[in-house]
Amino acid sequence: MHESFTVYLAGPDVFLRDAATVGARKKALCAARGLTGLFPFDNEAEPRSGDRLDVVIYKANVDMIRSADFAVFNLTPFRGPSADVGTVYELGYARALGIPCFGYSNDARDLRTRVGTFGRLAADAKGGWRDAVDMSVEDFGNADNLMIDASFATAGAPIVRNTVPGSDLYTDLRGFEACLEAIVAWTRATKPQRIVRA
Amino acid sequence: MHESFTVYLAGPDVFLRDAATVGARKKALCAARGLTGLFPFDNEAEPRSGDRLDVVIYKANVDMIRSADFAVFNLTPFRGPSADVGTVYELGYARALGIPCFGYSNDARDLRTRVGTFGRLAADAKGGWRDAVDMSVEDFGNADNLMIDASFATAGAPIVRNTVPGSDLYTDLRGFEACLEAIVAWTRATKPQRIVRA
Repeated sequence: MHESFTVYLAGPDVFLRDAATVGARKKALCAARGLTGLFPFDNEAEPRSGDRLDVVIYKANVDMIRSADFAVFNLTPFRGPSADVGTVYELGYARALGIPCFGYSNDARDLRTRVGTFGRLAADAKGGWRDAVDMSVEDFGNADNLMIDASFATAGAPIVRNTVPGSDLYTDLRGFEACLEAIVAWTRATKPQRIVRA
Repeated sequence: MHESFTVYLAGPDVFLRDAATVGARKKALCAARGLTGLFPFDNEAEPRSGDRLDVVIYKANVDMIRSADFAVFNLTPFRGPSADVGTVYELGYARALGIPCFGYSNDARDLRTRVGTFGRLAADAKGGWRDAVDMSVEDFGNADNLMIDASFATAGAPIVRNTVPGSDLYTDLRGFEACLEAIVAWTRATKPQRIVRA
């Protein structure tokens, strides 16, 4: 028997009014599969006097990522056509450390389609697409910027994309559960006693 | 004499219609300071048949980041109140590798103020702020999500924030030049012959 594998739970979930409830639900879904969920440090932290709260939270989150065997990212669009930048920062960080990453989005549409819902989207002369400020719009059928999607594609675990009603956009956990199942399958296939990273 | 230090040039600049021109300007500003700018692989790449273009670009960008001594990030808001997610992915990736990172934004306002320009922003009972979908809005006076700002603050090189007219939002390079000056000062202070990372 090995100790329980840990899973860092990244996403804009921390900004929900009931963030603690969603965190507890995610941790319970982990526990049901023999995994230990690590929910990001939240704003209830009490920094020592003189410490900047944002820096305290940053360091706690980074330390938690470094300690994790796996990470699951909620890449549902947040305040625009793309994922939450805090979550994406953590994705890049975890990838560079070689941590196996899994991701889901509760908006199944591709980036180009979604950019069109935020403003003008026009075809250009070369067969590409331009947004409202004439910036090029990627058209790979991806969920988001290619750095995000290709990061998952190259690792063999594409982003899980579901269509979820707006009312449940940040609380529906089907995609999250699919990611946990992928982790369970991964551990069964490779039978690691302990994740060892380069 | 050491070889020229390399600087990875991250930002949504790659989506500009005149991306190549902006890339050339950034590289020239690097060269004027004895630095070699590395502009991200763009969509003109010709993948071998069977290769996914997005994956080819992803791998080329990641390899370029890994080879860089420094990185400068254009964190100007992109399609919403926050920075471009591709750029932020690269920031997290570079940070985890220990690459010294410098960043600038051509919108000097803080995140909370900017979120308010995209929709409802309301004070909540605890003295915090809520956005149009009732998600918590950080209020640290930061340029963006705390994971981004604190990443720079902890490294001793805060994000350079300038106010730039909308017409020049993605092409004004004063903030970029300030980042290059910080790199030059850094190399003069530490006199590295070659950047060695853990």
